[in-house]
Amino acid sequence: MLPDVKLDPSASVGELTARLVDVESVSGSEGPLADAIEAALREYPHLSVVRDGNAVVARTELGRSRRVVLAGHIDTVPVAGNLPSKVEGDVLYGLGTSDMKSGVAVQLKLAAEVTAPAVDVTYVFYDCEEVESERNGLLRLSGNNPASLAADFAVLLEPTGSVVEGGCQGTLRAEIRVPGERAHSARAWMGRNAIHEAAAVLNLLTAYQARQPEVDGLRYREGLNAVGISGGVAGNVVPDECVVTVNYRFAPDRSSEQAADHVREVFAAWQVTITDVAGGARPGLGNQAAASFVAAMGGTPRAKLGWTDVARFDSLGVPAVNYGPGDPALAHSRREHVALVAIAECESRMRSWLTGD
Amino acid sequence: MLPDVKLDPSASVGELTARLVDVESVSGSEGPLADAIEAALREYPHLSVVRDGNAVVARTELGRSRRVVLAGHIDTVPVAGNLPSKVEGDVLYGLGTSDMKSGVAVQLKLAAEVTAPAVDVTYVFYDCEEVESERNGLLRLSGNNPASLAADFAVLLEPTGSVVEGGCQGTLRAEIRVPGERAHSARAWMGRNAIHEAAAVLNLLTAYQARQPEVDGLRYREGLNAVGISGGVAGNVVPDECVVTVNYRFAPDRSSEQAADHVREVFAAWQVTITDVAGGARPGLGNQAAASFVAAMGGTPRAKLGWTDVARFDSLGVPAVNYGPGDPALAHSRREHVALVAIAECESRMRSWLTGD
Repeated sequence: MLPDVKLDPSASVGELTARLVDVESVSGSEGPLADAIEAALREYPHLSVVRDGNAVVARTELGRSRRVVLAGHIDTVPVAGNLPSKVEGDVLYGLGTSDMKSGVAVQLKLAAEVTAPAVDVTYVFYDCEEVESERNGLLRLSGNNPASLAADFAVLLEPTGSVVEGGCQGTLRAEIRVPGERAHSARAWMGRNAIHEAAAVLNLLTAYQARQPEVDGLRYREGLNAVGISGGVAGNVVPDECVVTVNYRFAPDRSSEQAADHVREVFAAWQVTITDVAGGARPGLGNQAAASFVAAMGGTPRAKLGWTDVARFDSLGVPAVNYGPGDPALAHSRREHVALVAIAECESRMRSWLTGD
Repeated sequence: MLPDVKLDPSASVGELTARLVDVESVSGSEGPLADAIEAALREYPHLSVVRDGNAVVARTELGRSRRVVLAGHIDTVPVAGNLPSKVEGDVLYGLGTSDMKSGVAVQLKLAAEVTAPAVDVTYVFYDCEEVESERNGLLRLSGNNPASLAADFAVLLEPTGSVVEGGCQGTLRAEIRVPGERAHSARAWMGRNAIHEAAAVLNLLTAYQARQPEVDGLRYREGLNAVGISGGVAGNVVPDECVVTVNYRFAPDRSSEQAADHVREVFAAWQVTITDVAGGARPGLGNQAAASFVAAMGGTPRAKLGWTDVARFDSLGVPAVNYGPGDPALAHSRREHVALVAIAECESRMRSWLTGD
């Protein structure tokens, strides 16, 4: 049975964000939220709406000479005691408030209310952005229906603190396999404890000095982190394997291949398996469409540190930037929140840009 | 459907061991093996057989003035590519060959063939010795049917390399909880990586100097090992918790409480949860029954390093020792094996002892 979820795009973007947050949509279980978004958009005759899995695409078809995409993912990382949402003063707290249901609320409101934009607009709401790239809804969409993503320019409403963020860093996951030799734990000296030996991997990670390169005028900041560790056979066995899963975030001056080589080099003492990699995108703010958007939004652009689907638009030949109301520094933290005024400001600026005011 | 397993106690103890090994019986799934043992023993009119869960107890009821217990567990640690058994020269390889299906084979053969022992004998075959102590079949049996374990003396046929091993070390498991702070892995410096910080726990374990105290004339050897580690929220999240499970094997000059205090002291920087503890047993070879058994078996007794159910018999007021054909140093290793001649020798010595020859 689907929960009885109804979204009202005529509410304020703050209220709309709270409503979106309260429909839990951890990656893989976006169904109820996608249903609610689809149902809300089908109410508007100026939009043609298509559903693909748990992605929803709504388009104006006004025959304008140019088309832009506004895109956002509707999934979140796992719940961490931060649902439902709550308002404290001028701030909305809760899972996804920053990354990126506030941006999705802006998309939803603009889709409903901007009936006569100066350019044709494609609003893309998609699933599974917070997990392995092969599950990404935008990737699926680009395979099933590439024409639906065609445009002259795209904006991803990922959290950027209302500043245009250019490009994005790549992300690579790898498993570092530390071997040992099994033995009864009452005679541990007969074996070799793989978990104890994994200390060397963790010590390396702790001491790791990340690069902070400048690319096309923007400063990136890399990172190499353990995001998982597992080992153990039974409570009385010295384990013969410990696996550390690491996530390398790399600046867009490195290709996916160079990133993989780097991780293999850092962990040269062990078996390294690359499990997942998505390349970054250089900022590309020299592009005319991007430059005009930057001028319209104001402020000084900076580097996008998180991987976002600007890289996917980049590979589809669509120039893209990140611009959204959330604070990127709060994404995926338990205390995730967003200022209500920032959401309203993002809505207002983008409405002006779309209508050509 | 139960596998069609049949055991023939008239086979040699070597063949019988191979047959027992080939019936997989990882802790919690001993049913088919318990069925086969029960069915085999019920063939002999000189035995009264009782089943309790996956434990089987067979007793002679000859009205002798003294009664001894021969006991062994029928479960094994998880399979590690070491099934089925195979014979190479005079050696039998496979999971449980040493710990402790060779001992179980001796019990089974003696139960079947020693129809007129000099003392009454209780043969105990029990389940779940290789897991948390609350699941232990002998513990369950001592609750359901304590009279079935009453005796003047008990021998556990755990692997001892055919030397009497006195007492046993205690075993304690604890979870060491390392906290962190969640963040998006693209901005790791906003959080604190619990897995990276667990390096301190692993470094402590690597540097740990274990005690080797002498207790009642026997030399014990302690150990502190990680037997499990887990951490990780999602592939793009800096994790806020990493849990290391450690197993402390402590000499019988320390009580369970002292062992817990020691572990809490070693890991004083973190939250420590004791999840499982089973105290050891002092050697107690001054006891007359134990001393006469030692004399009958020959050799110089030594300390038992692994925890065994001698501690449980000890707490039931039954003096107990370990004596079995397996090599304790091979228990729980992938290359577990036993010399066929050692099984036959154990059978022969114990047969002489039981019949009073």
